Amino acid sequence: MSKTRIGIIGYGNIGRGVEAAVKQNSDIELVAIFTRRPPETLQTNSPAKVIMISDAERYTDSIDVMLLCGGSATDLPEQGPQFARMFNTVDTFDTHARIPEYFDKVNASALAGGKTGIISVGWDPGLFSMLRMISGAILPKGMDYTFWGKGVSQGHSDAIRRVPGVKNGIQYTVPFKTAIERVRTGSNPELSTREKHFRECYVVAEEDADKTRIEAEIKNMPNYFADYNTTVNFITEEDLKKNHSKMPHGGFVFRSGFTGESKANNHIIEFSLKLDSNPEFTSNVLLAYARAAHRMNREGLTGGKTVFDVPLSYLSPQSNSELRRKLL
Amino acid sequence: MSKTRIGIIGYGNIGRGVEAAVKQNSDIELVAIFTRRPPETLQTNSPAKVIMISDAERYTDSIDVMLLCGGSATDLPEQGPQFARMFNTVDTFDTHARIPEYFDKVNASALAGGKTGIISVGWDPGLFSMLRMISGAILPKGMDYTFWGKGVSQGHSDAIRRVPGVKNGIQYTVPFKTAIERVRTGSNPELSTREKHFRECYVVAEEDADKTRIEAEIKNMPNYFADYNTTVNFITEEDLKKNHSKMPHGGFVFRSGFTGESKANNHIIEFSLKLDSNPEFTSNVLLAYARAAHRMNREGLTGGKTVFDVPLSYLSPQSNSELRRKLL
Repeated sequence: MSKTRIGIIGYGNIGRGVEAAVKQNSDIELVAIFTRRPPETLQTNSPAKVIMISDAERYTDSIDVMLLCGGSATDLPEQGPQFARMFNTVDTFDTHARIPEYFDKVNASALAGGKTGIISVGWDPGLFSMLRMISGAILPKGMDYTFWGKGVSQGHSDAIRRVPGVKNGIQYTVPFKTAIERVRTGSNPELSTREKHFRECYVVAEEDADKTRIEAEIKNMPNYFADYNTTVNFITEEDLKKNHSKMPHGGFVFRSGFTGESKANNHIIEFSLKLDSNPEFTSNVLLAYARAAHRMNREGLTGGKTVFDVPLSYLSPQSNSELRRKLL
Repeated sequence: MSKTRIGIIGYGNIGRGVEAAVKQNSDIELVAIFTRRPPETLQTNSPAKVIMISDAERYTDSIDVMLLCGGSATDLPEQGPQFARMFNTVDTFDTHARIPEYFDKVNASALAGGKTGIISVGWDPGLFSMLRMISGAILPKGMDYTFWGKGVSQGHSDAIRRVPGVKNGIQYTVPFKTAIERVRTGSNPELSTREKHFRECYVVAEEDADKTRIEAEIKNMPNYFADYNTTVNFITEEDLKKNHSKMPHGGFVFRSGFTGESKANNHIIEFSLKLDSNPEFTSNVLLAYARAAHRMNREGLTGGKTVFDVPLSYLSPQSNSELRRKLL
């Protein structure tokens, strides 16, 4: 079978992660990285060409799948529909509330161009969504629980950095182990927002800033922190760089349900991730779905798709008979 | 959408579990239970008809999917290929080494009859296989670990009961928590058979039987117990009935892999099940795949299938747009 030739649009954390992931997959070839920056300013880690994004359409014959590695706020709403008309695409669109609208646009473009566009790939949305879906279909009577972390939340870290007197900062979302244990026992607890997660902030204050005021302002920030137990730790810029520069994340998805005539039998399905690098792991998920997008398109399965539409075998480089023999 | 009308072949633990599961799924209707026993001798828990298995072919127009609930040793090798020609089927064939051969036979029959036959559904093979496959596709560099239990192994319980002087008995396979913890830390340990699981036996001895000899004979039994640390507990028949009549099971699937240029970033994917009733949970999985078999067949996707071939959305009674809105 010939290789799946991919392109990367957007060279941030995810784009760099995809570039690294290609080296672990011998059936995938990275053709080019597309950027809005002057191409010669990019320091890449592979022999792939670096091209102006405006020249992407010249690559429709040499790229099988374009991986859209930009952000959900402004990049993808524009790039998704635009590129799905020219290329098979995979993206990480993660603004939950806008998924239906985004799907419709990508679907229309992909159908018009005879392409396959898989949206909202990663781990949440993505693997976590798949597990919620499978588990609910298997145990129709039951409760769902999702916990995130311990991991860095970009949105909350940004919020900290907007507080006057804050030079730099990072925020970890942390699930309560006791809450997870209560779910694991099958007791189906009702858990409030405050009982599920707490928030750990590491803050570098400007010289002479009023730390008491900063701490209070963070802890009382509506939407972000007011509904949680929050700790604020003041540290030095060096400490931040040395101990908080990785981007770990993870989480837990549970379905706790019952079967049988008398509801006597309880069952717990648990799925969890513990990731040293959120963007690198997400990139590896994207790459598996790039393989699937290519195969689905060759089989005439065009239009917008999600993780719910992709047969699992399409994620693997192994043949169906190998999978049955080795993994079933 | 019209209901999926199912039939059950074989009224043992799984057949009864499917019968109960139907009551949790309003889009599925149980039409009939087929048995080799005299139909009037079956005490069922639903208004479904009980029919001689030899009359099944008269139901090809009134049943959309036949659930084959017999055993893998002798029932399914015969029934799978036989019924896949007449009905869409779902089964729990779990003799790993014979899956390729079994698949080929079911596939040939299903193709000849224009039907869809999904084989080897349940949790292992089944959900565990899916998780192994997905995880390996996402993290191509890494190690797989599967632990089973704590749960009843029928094969090992049967082996105990064949020992002279044993009146009754049950065996639990139990994973070592310490081994699971070592995998969770990402240390990628090499684990021997003895280090992964131990075996707990509860034995009812015949009066005047030599318990020391029974214990030694169990512990030294090749293939079944000799390679494991095994405990043998002698109990009364009453104790066995009271405390060991449920069929709990479960287990853990791990993928521990790395990404990035320097292998610096490790990731752990963990999936686990904790089941009060192995057969009832397995039955619920079967029922979700019955829904999928029906839909795949309506869409012209005929032949033999496995969990690797089924798009996940086909397991759910919800529409694709509902799934995207609520679960993605």
